Amino acid sequence: MREIGIDRLDDLARGAGILGTGGGGDPYVGKLLAREAIRRHGPVTVYDIDEVPADATVVAVSGMGAPTVLLEKLPAGTEELTALRALEAVLGRPATHIVPIEIGGVNSMIPIAAAAQAGLPLVDGDAMGRAFPEAQMVLPTLIGVPNTPMAVADDKGNTLVVDTVSNQWAERITRAACVQMGCQVSCADTVLRGDQLRDGLVPATLTLAEDLGRAVRLARAANDDPVRAALDALGGVKLFTGKVVDVERRTTGGFARGRARLEGTSTLELSFQNEHLLARRDGEIVATTPDLICVLDTDSGEPVTTEAMRYGLRVTVIAAPCDPRWTTPAGLELAGPRYFGYDCDYLPLQGRYAQLT
Amino acid sequence: MREIGIDRLDDLARGAGILGTGGGGDPYVGKLLAREAIRRHGPVTVYDIDEVPADATVVAVSGMGAPTVLLEKLPAGTEELTALRALEAVLGRPATHIVPIEIGGVNSMIPIAAAAQAGLPLVDGDAMGRAFPEAQMVLPTLIGVPNTPMAVADDKGNTLVVDTVSNQWAERITRAACVQMGCQVSCADTVLRGDQLRDGLVPATLTLAEDLGRAVRLARAANDDPVRAALDALGGVKLFTGKVVDVERRTTGGFARGRARLEGTSTLELSFQNEHLLARRDGEIVATTPDLICVLDTDSGEPVTTEAMRYGLRVTVIAAPCDPRWTTPAGLELAGPRYFGYDCDYLPLQGRYAQLT
Repeated sequence: MREIGIDRLDDLARGAGILGTGGGGDPYVGKLLAREAIRRHGPVTVYDIDEVPADATVVAVSGMGAPTVLLEKLPAGTEELTALRALEAVLGRPATHIVPIEIGGVNSMIPIAAAAQAGLPLVDGDAMGRAFPEAQMVLPTLIGVPNTPMAVADDKGNTLVVDTVSNQWAERITRAACVQMGCQVSCADTVLRGDQLRDGLVPATLTLAEDLGRAVRLARAANDDPVRAALDALGGVKLFTGKVVDVERRTTGGFARGRARLEGTSTLELSFQNEHLLARRDGEIVATTPDLICVLDTDSGEPVTTEAMRYGLRVTVIAAPCDPRWTTPAGLELAGPRYFGYDCDYLPLQGRYAQLT
Repeated sequence: MREIGIDRLDDLARGAGILGTGGGGDPYVGKLLAREAIRRHGPVTVYDIDEVPADATVVAVSGMGAPTVLLEKLPAGTEELTALRALEAVLGRPATHIVPIEIGGVNSMIPIAAAAQAGLPLVDGDAMGRAFPEAQMVLPTLIGVPNTPMAVADDKGNTLVVDTVSNQWAERITRAACVQMGCQVSCADTVLRGDQLRDGLVPATLTLAEDLGRAVRLARAANDDPVRAALDALGGVKLFTGKVVDVERRTTGGFARGRARLEGTSTLELSFQNEHLLARRDGEIVATTPDLICVLDTDSGEPVTTEAMRYGLRVTVIAAPCDPRWTTPAGLELAGPRYFGYDCDYLPLQGRYAQLT
């Protein structure tokens, strides 16, 4: 991928919506932000990880908050650049590249908007290879790279910069501030040098998101099965097809938390904290975080975010393997099911299903 | 006052405990911090407001949190200097003077510790002339001076710097962060130029605190009435003498909130949010914020903080007039009874009691 113009946003947002595993925020809102920024400032240049100079200053720009709030309270569109500038002021040097912190939903789009506004290139990759709800759940944490200084900006003009003793503390403090600031803010953080990108990022996930989004669109246009197309693009497995019959959802502690019950020939229960974290089929666990659990509209293949789940939706739930660094002991400690309070171990997808690559 | 050495801390802390109107945190803990800092770095030079150059950079250093927490969780003693350095980094220039944000309790002592550690002089005054629970309740708010950039540091090594669109937003964001950081942090904020001190500070309150503390000590040593001595030094009025019979207290939202019931020949009820805000005698309101409502041990004249109120204590409750700027419409909007949710107007002390100056 060499450049992101307005014409590529639809596929990208669709694919990122799927990779966002229900979270990461409504990609539609993100698309509007990215579109407006590209319209004003022109397309965004994209570099592969290997093309970034070793001494580059790569900054992750993202949104933080509860996706349920984003639905009703739109960003002002100035937050991401304000956060970036606040971070640069503390760093004492300008960012040279922008990168998504996660490839989920709105957080694939906000970095594009920020890159366009700042006139900076984007790096094709992200720090999760999916979406996770908490700020410390990034590969840089696994390699000891701090996510602070972290700059946070809201739509009202308030900013804060935190510098913490651990990435968990950054999450804890900024999440509390984020709730006060309206539960929807932008962050600039997790400064990586160019030579840290290989260990700190999942490569080429913007390309993956676009490929995935395009595959779904083309299958739909050709009257093929768009869910099948997504599965093929992702290397995933179909867990369930059926109808949403119950959603229990609350916006608490700065997150959208809850459970959804789906009925088909069996019953599937999904548990989420912004992202889908656990899938139980007829009471038996069939997929867990950190693997990707994605909900797609059965007919259109469009991603269904946790906040958009509602009674009557016909959906297909698929699962796909996460980046292998997440299934190491350290990775599971950071983002495995027990971290989120579920009394079960990680259940590897890989090896259980023939169709997985 | 020209210099604060260890020998002046006792009187100062006692007087500031009284001026803290029940809040501001246990002056004993603050005294230990100030004593240790002076022991290591030498006495602190003090200047009157009029002696500070017009272009000076005066920074308020204080503790934020719930006094109930301070009782059990001692500061590391490094927070105030960390906060000051974080603020200076954002300002791009060093502080030239330190000033207390409030003259209450521990917040009279933390600036002394900070000044000793930083090798800076202290200004004889404070931004309230008493203690108030929230960050925006300072005279600089009344003259349009922002309290941000505000730097906050905890005992673990976490720092944050906020820059907000109003002083109320600074309170809201840092309070939420403070709760996460352990409900006891240090702040450096409210940068005043030397030529703003007259409008932004109540002058000579360190001197007043020491005079008040000394008067109580000398009266006690002479077997005189120490409460009478405090009243004379403050220009206050005695509201009540009796025994604490009930205290309802909870640490919530980053504050110690509650009510205390006192019985004597009548019944007095005190309502507090860190500080005493309202006094009702036999159901009738007899004093309200922003006037000072202070609880003294009847025998010793020592200040009793809201977190130290307990069944059986024999106390005398006195009231004293606040700085007149607090009783203007803007002052009352900021710190009058209605702001705190009490359904009553400010009841001026001045004029109701013959013995008031």
